[in-house]
Amino acid sequence: MKDGEPTRPQLRYLEDFKAGDRISSGSFEVTAELIRSFAELYDPQPMHIDEEAARQTIFGELVGSGWQTLAITMRLLVDARLLGGTPIVGAEFANLRFHRPIRPGDSLKATAEVLQTRPSRSRNDRGFMDLQVTTTNQHDETVLTQAWTLIVPTRAAVHN
Amino acid sequence: MKDGEPTRPQLRYLEDFKAGDRISSGSFEVTAELIRSFAELYDPQPMHIDEEAARQTIFGELVGSGWQTLAITMRLLVDARLLGGTPIVGAEFANLRFHRPIRPGDSLKATAEVLQTRPSRSRNDRGFMDLQVTTTNQHDETVLTQAWTLIVPTRAAVHN
Repeated sequence: MKDGEPTRPQLRYLEDFKAGDRISSGSFEVTAELIRSFAELYDPQPMHIDEEAARQTIFGELVGSGWQTLAITMRLLVDARLLGGTPIVGAEFANLRFHRPIRPGDSLKATAEVLQTRPSRSRNDRGFMDLQVTTTNQHDETVLTQAWTLIVPTRAAVHN
Repeated sequence: MKDGEPTRPQLRYLEDFKAGDRISSGSFEVTAELIRSFAELYDPQPMHIDEEAARQTIFGELVGSGWQTLAITMRLLVDARLLGGTPIVGAEFANLRFHRPIRPGDSLKATAEVLQTRPSRSRNDRGFMDLQVTTTNQHDETVLTQAWTLIVPTRAAVHN
């Protein structure tokens, strides 16, 4: 590490987590500009890029792409140091449900609750962690729920 | 519609689809700049933002965020007019598996195969369509698979 670089957060291992652990994020402010800039590149549908056209859709107003809600949730959990300095690497994501759209002015938060940890059957240097991830808005309304299975190194990985 | 606006693609309804239908997309070129600009905003982890730091991770090189792979897949299917002019609105997404990371220089394509359509039990103006969505790279390697359940209007919606 070079002089002057910020200290890296501590690596965390599978053994550091147990069922019931909860990680809560800070907040992320959604703007119309952010909704449009994401949508122009990744989801150019009328309800995400044009306020006038959005009024003609079932949403009745400009709303963010669900894929952006997912991306923002990731940002919140990266900033919350879900795994400390250990990279967040997913094995599988399931049961993604978009309960409400996100809108300009929304302030989103995410929480991740550990459901279980389980060692890999084939390798002793890693295992899996199942998490329930919930994204809420400033009214404490749930906007997105999903189930994550992450690949997390075990302490054995340090010596391999 | 104003003069000079492009003609909107035809709306498609639940009755227009059947199991086995396949929709194939064009292609999307992944660049290092695109990987970094997405990651800086939504997934600022070393393997997504810095080539040097990425070499120290299990990926060994700069790779795109999985959430960006998802977003690109959406863009491919929006451009492919998956539902014609009908908005693509998801009810649930499941079984997301990231088989390979995306890298600078990759050219991605997506295909969506209709597994089944089913009417809503509570409303006659809409139903659900289950799709298997597969994203591949220029080597025909699968990078992402997922199961989509979309909310699709029925022809009854036209008269409600």
